[in-house]
Amino acid sequence: MARPSLHRRDSHREDPHVASPSTALRASGARDEAVRSDSAAHPERSRGTSDGEGTPPQNTARPSTALRVSGGVLEDLPLRDPISIEAVQETLVRLQDEICAGLEEEDGGAKFREDAWEKTGDGGGRARVLEDGPVFEKAAVLFSHLSGADLPKSATASRPVMEGRPWEAIGLSLIVHPRNPYVPAAHLNLRFFLVTGDGDPVWWFGGGYDLTPVYGFEEDAIHWHQTAKRACDDVDELLYPRFKKACDEYFYLKHRGEARGVGGIFFDDFDDGGFANGFSLLCRVGDSFLPAYRPIVARRKATPFGEPERAFQLLRRGRYAEFNLAYDRGTRFGVHSGGRMESILASMPPLAAWRYDWHPQPGTAEARLTEFFLQPRDWASGGR
Amino acid sequence: MARPSLHRRDSHREDPHVASPSTALRASGARDEAVRSDSAAHPERSRGTSDGEGTPPQNTARPSTALRVSGGVLEDLPLRDPISIEAVQETLVRLQDEICAGLEEEDGGAKFREDAWEKTGDGGGRARVLEDGPVFEKAAVLFSHLSGADLPKSATASRPVMEGRPWEAIGLSLIVHPRNPYVPAAHLNLRFFLVTGDGDPVWWFGGGYDLTPVYGFEEDAIHWHQTAKRACDDVDELLYPRFKKACDEYFYLKHRGEARGVGGIFFDDFDDGGFANGFSLLCRVGDSFLPAYRPIVARRKATPFGEPERAFQLLRRGRYAEFNLAYDRGTRFGVHSGGRMESILASMPPLAAWRYDWHPQPGTAEARLTEFFLQPRDWASGGR
Repeated sequence: MARPSLHRRDSHREDPHVASPSTALRASGARDEAVRSDSAAHPERSRGTSDGEGTPPQNTARPSTALRVSGGVLEDLPLRDPISIEAVQETLVRLQDEICAGLEEEDGGAKFREDAWEKTGDGGGRARVLEDGPVFEKAAVLFSHLSGADLPKSATASRPVMEGRPWEAIGLSLIVHPRNPYVPAAHLNLRFFLVTGDGDPVWWFGGGYDLTPVYGFEEDAIHWHQTAKRACDDVDELLYPRFKKACDEYFYLKHRGEARGVGGIFFDDFDDGGFANGFSLLCRVGDSFLPAYRPIVARRKATPFGEPERAFQLLRRGRYAEFNLAYDRGTRFGVHSGGRMESILASMPPLAAWRYDWHPQPGTAEARLTEFFLQPRDWASGGR
Repeated sequence: MARPSLHRRDSHREDPHVASPSTALRASGARDEAVRSDSAAHPERSRGTSDGEGTPPQNTARPSTALRVSGGVLEDLPLRDPISIEAVQETLVRLQDEICAGLEEEDGGAKFREDAWEKTGDGGGRARVLEDGPVFEKAAVLFSHLSGADLPKSATASRPVMEGRPWEAIGLSLIVHPRNPYVPAAHLNLRFFLVTGDGDPVWWFGGGYDLTPVYGFEEDAIHWHQTAKRACDDVDELLYPRFKKACDEYFYLKHRGEARGVGGIFFDDFDDGGFANGFSLLCRVGDSFLPAYRPIVARRKATPFGEPERAFQLLRRGRYAEFNLAYDRGTRFGVHSGGRMESILASMPPLAAWRYDWHPQPGTAEARLTEFFLQPRDWASGGR
């Protein structure tokens, strides 16, 4: 797949029609802002691991954009290492390539089509969407890199030091809606946010992935969580429990009193241990997605199913749509602020259903989904 | 159809576990709060018409609940007439019966099933839902009567005089999702809100109806609007233009830059000319719904259609779902405040679809929907 030219910060730093500041959260990579984990906790336990496999230490290889923008003052700051948004971009673009290739291979039929887009002053992105595959009814893997000239007060309430400063948001967002009801839907998000300009740079990482089964399988949920835990443990063993809890809290439909799925990991505002540490976490989470998801798809995709299973899947997708439109902060912000609509709504299911007051029969697999699988469980330890 | 015992305010006035005040907007009848029309304008032109056919003057026939609650002080107030929430309830229950009977007749197959529900301290309702009919894939006609002991500050910002006072909300809400893509979806809402307790009673009416075609027909939009206009004109000829504009403004998907449908009428905070005048408007709008909708259903329901038309209908229903979950104030409030979920989400389409970056071919009927029909037009005067 040819790589299109990607939007770079440098390429429009001189654009006078620079983005409205409210685009900060428009990045598909800037979704899921709800749960703020206690990022500041235990910084002494975090350690940079950018030398691990799959996480090349690009971030130290050259002067970073941020350094250039802020005048190279970072050397004077304790507990900081060189910040490279270019390294993050390269990693997310590589992950987009690898994940799309992996999903196409697993689908065995359909191919992603690509939209490279640019919006003057806002930034750009590379959207890849696969529809109507034999395995994947819809899969969207979206890279975006947005920026703005000054952050509005409304976006900086918790950190007034960021007000009025230039910012960049870079992210990769993925959603997979499989055709077979026995294959769970998956969601991944990886993002980096950077505030430059006068003063110390402010930045953080966010992301995670979560799994949404229609029919639950304990071994799938266990494999998914154990893979996520290994990725986090490589950085810090304290991270997985924190991120798992944050995921359970964020992907929750309050009005249904029900989890969206069996969860996974979710983090935001992550700057523990410096840039290299956060970048390492981002890489490890990103690199663990296909190993977490593909084995589950592979073992379920040929399971025979009929109309009742399909009907149940569509009802469950209705709840997915409810979550995205009514709760997801990125979607809601995008809908109300005028982001790139096709990217923002790429997460919507291809087909979804609602029935009035429908409840599964007791004792069925459909009832077991909500009664057993959609309850918070310690899946990494076997789902007790 | 047997009438269940309906929740009355009197029946739980002594309930110590009275509703949380935030239920003020939970009533299905309290949806659509967004557009505040200039209700105070031209009160001198409003005139009570409660003696008209179809709008029996029950409101003067006996002492009203409100009068009893507030100590019968209303006689002393200028420009007021006796307020009777019981008269509103009787009218909405009658309309629910008549509309359900009319829709069943038009469907010719399926019947509404009924849920009478009551929630201690919150109120109750009578939900009627028809699913899988030959003509109507889903129709929901919901009556509710909710109340609370004291209005919270957050709900009374615009009228501090209401703070901490008991309230009642009574409403009828309707949504019809037809099966045939040539039959438009319809929505109706009628509601009355009353604040009692110490001080002058505060009350207003709200409501309206709007039409959402998948394939547009000028004669349908004209008939719909002319019927709505006649209902409003019977009360005051200044109302239709105001309510038509409010409808266009409220049922608008900002993120799509597109109207939800061809509109209709929408009003809120209506207290022009006293209770009898508002009650008359409510009755006339309610009574005009079947005459507005049935002829359209009748002339389109046998139109042959195939998979392409069905697929387009499902995409349009996706936008309907987007509106309900992302914009509609009643739905959003209900989702976030814990109202009766099955009622709040009864408006969701039975089946809806999303496709990435889909656009109709130029020159097709699908393109004409957005290009022509979803633009604000003076339909009552022929759609110029």
